[in-house]
Amino acid sequence: MCESRVNAPDAGQRGETTRILLDCDTGIDDALAILYLAGLEGVSIVAAGSVHGNVPAPLGALNTLRVLELAGLDDVPVAVGAARPMAQPLQTAEFVHGEDGLGNIHWPMPRRRPSAEPAAQQIVRLAREQPGELVLLAIGPLTNLGLALLLEPELPRLLRRVVVMGGAVYRAGNATADAEANVWHDPEAAELALGAGWPLTLVGLDVTMQVSLAGDALAELQAASSAVGRFAWSILQHYLAFYESYYGARMCHLHDPLAAGIAVDSSLARYRRTPVHVELRGERTRGATRGSLPWWLNPPSGEPEVEVAVEVDAERFVRGFLDVLAGARAP
Amino acid sequence: MCESRVNAPDAGQRGETTRILLDCDTGIDDALAILYLAGLEGVSIVAAGSVHGNVPAPLGALNTLRVLELAGLDDVPVAVGAARPMAQPLQTAEFVHGEDGLGNIHWPMPRRRPSAEPAAQQIVRLAREQPGELVLLAIGPLTNLGLALLLEPELPRLLRRVVVMGGAVYRAGNATADAEANVWHDPEAAELALGAGWPLTLVGLDVTMQVSLAGDALAELQAASSAVGRFAWSILQHYLAFYESYYGARMCHLHDPLAAGIAVDSSLARYRRTPVHVELRGERTRGATRGSLPWWLNPPSGEPEVEVAVEVDAERFVRGFLDVLAGARAP
Repeated sequence: MCESRVNAPDAGQRGETTRILLDCDTGIDDALAILYLAGLEGVSIVAAGSVHGNVPAPLGALNTLRVLELAGLDDVPVAVGAARPMAQPLQTAEFVHGEDGLGNIHWPMPRRRPSAEPAAQQIVRLAREQPGELVLLAIGPLTNLGLALLLEPELPRLLRRVVVMGGAVYRAGNATADAEANVWHDPEAAELALGAGWPLTLVGLDVTMQVSLAGDALAELQAASSAVGRFAWSILQHYLAFYESYYGARMCHLHDPLAAGIAVDSSLARYRRTPVHVELRGERTRGATRGSLPWWLNPPSGEPEVEVAVEVDAERFVRGFLDVLAGARAP
Repeated sequence: MCESRVNAPDAGQRGETTRILLDCDTGIDDALAILYLAGLEGVSIVAAGSVHGNVPAPLGALNTLRVLELAGLDDVPVAVGAARPMAQPLQTAEFVHGEDGLGNIHWPMPRRRPSAEPAAQQIVRLAREQPGELVLLAIGPLTNLGLALLLEPELPRLLRRVVVMGGAVYRAGNATADAEANVWHDPEAAELALGAGWPLTLVGLDVTMQVSLAGDALAELQAASSAVGRFAWSILQHYLAFYESYYGARMCHLHDPLAAGIAVDSSLARYRRTPVHVELRGERTRGATRGSLPWWLNPPSGEPEVEVAVEVDAERFVRGFLDVLAGARAP
């Protein structure tokens, strides 16, 4: 790890290290999230697992290794995770992330290889070995989390916290009119994860759409001279082109990095506690994530609640993100 | 009809009469919509039909007769319509509208009785008799419209325009997190109506939630001395109490009156053209109304489009509504 890292307030102020168990489908914004975490003081990535989603799971694992290598994190094991969703066919998103998942920059093969253990099994093993210590940060579809919950029903009591980039509880989706992409890629697994009764924070489009990288922030990243900054800028080009085709403007949201930021510093957001369920049956709304029905239809049920991020300090987050990715402190 | 009516811009400026065929589940805001229409110059209510929804269909027909009588419209025939939805059990909303549907004021029985013809059949008959003349204004569940479309496949070509209070295309619902009440009461019928290929304007929560009656506007209505104004104020008390229990403030929205206003003066709103479908299968989202999926999932299909009202001149509408309901010009 690099020495010149930016302080992560939550962990740093308590003098503790946030121990992250990462689950990802790396992916352009996954890569940015990993580089951001790698540059934060007081954060340790204990292990990573890949999952189908932005790209197939084996490619996601290779990309995770590529990015960890760039960040100098050569000691973080990377497991390959679920190759397909629980109850629907595989769909990937190369049109957003490029054929290689990293904006078609065709980065060299990493030196290391993925570990032999499946990602879900790795989650269960590490949670048992370090009970109450790990923050599980899931920034891809939730298939590995669903599998881990089925493998080990005690899992909810073995983790410190679960932070999920996923869902759109109080606003429209991005994969469909209602479904956010990570949930849409495996609605059944998401329903398992959201109902597991663990301390789960949902970082969905409710807040990630409040955070944009555009204008001066993009210029600052473009001017970065570190290897990490130059890599980030090069993979971003494909992502920005996708956003531009959709919004007509040169910008992007920072879905996965924001979830990483909130995993490390919960004070970045405000939250609403509610049970959240996933629509599994809809013809048009499958994958929608919704809180309780109104009181006249569905009185409080005692179901497990999750913490839905509903408002975020976007300016502070983007500043911190650029301090790492564009700053002199980049790993 | 009364002579001192407020001008309805669309019709009035062209010197034409807007001939309204009304479908309603009268209900407090239905009653307000009828009184508002009755007080507009250049508007003629040709006939009305009731439908299950706020209250059972037979009570809705009696209430429609009560309100028409108060407005002096003793020549408007009222048919009883569908007593239940197409594919789900009957549910009514007395908790919003009162046991009598009119805020528990227990208004006397009307002098007239409903006609013998079912409401759906009345729609078909009048549309055939006056092809291209009638504006079908539906402010309840769409069961009668669905039945009429099944009875007469040519119906879409026989009406001038269809204006529906229903749906929530780009925002949350009010019966559930996703479903607006009129669509939720009969999703199958709504899907038939929205896909019929007739010139349909959807006045949903997208715009009706932009229009509130509160503060000075309420005070103006409270001060009204006409029989219509006093009736409107008395039925509103139950409605206001319901809203207050939900919002914690003394106010209400004007769902049905706004649809009536837009049926008469389309310049009150801005619109977006899109196909709209109803989620029929969802466990949690049944009754959601949604536009097209994003282009990467669902290229333009050539499906029938409807005109979704997305923005409304609330101030102008409320002013016109009060001119009729609270003004000296009340019928």
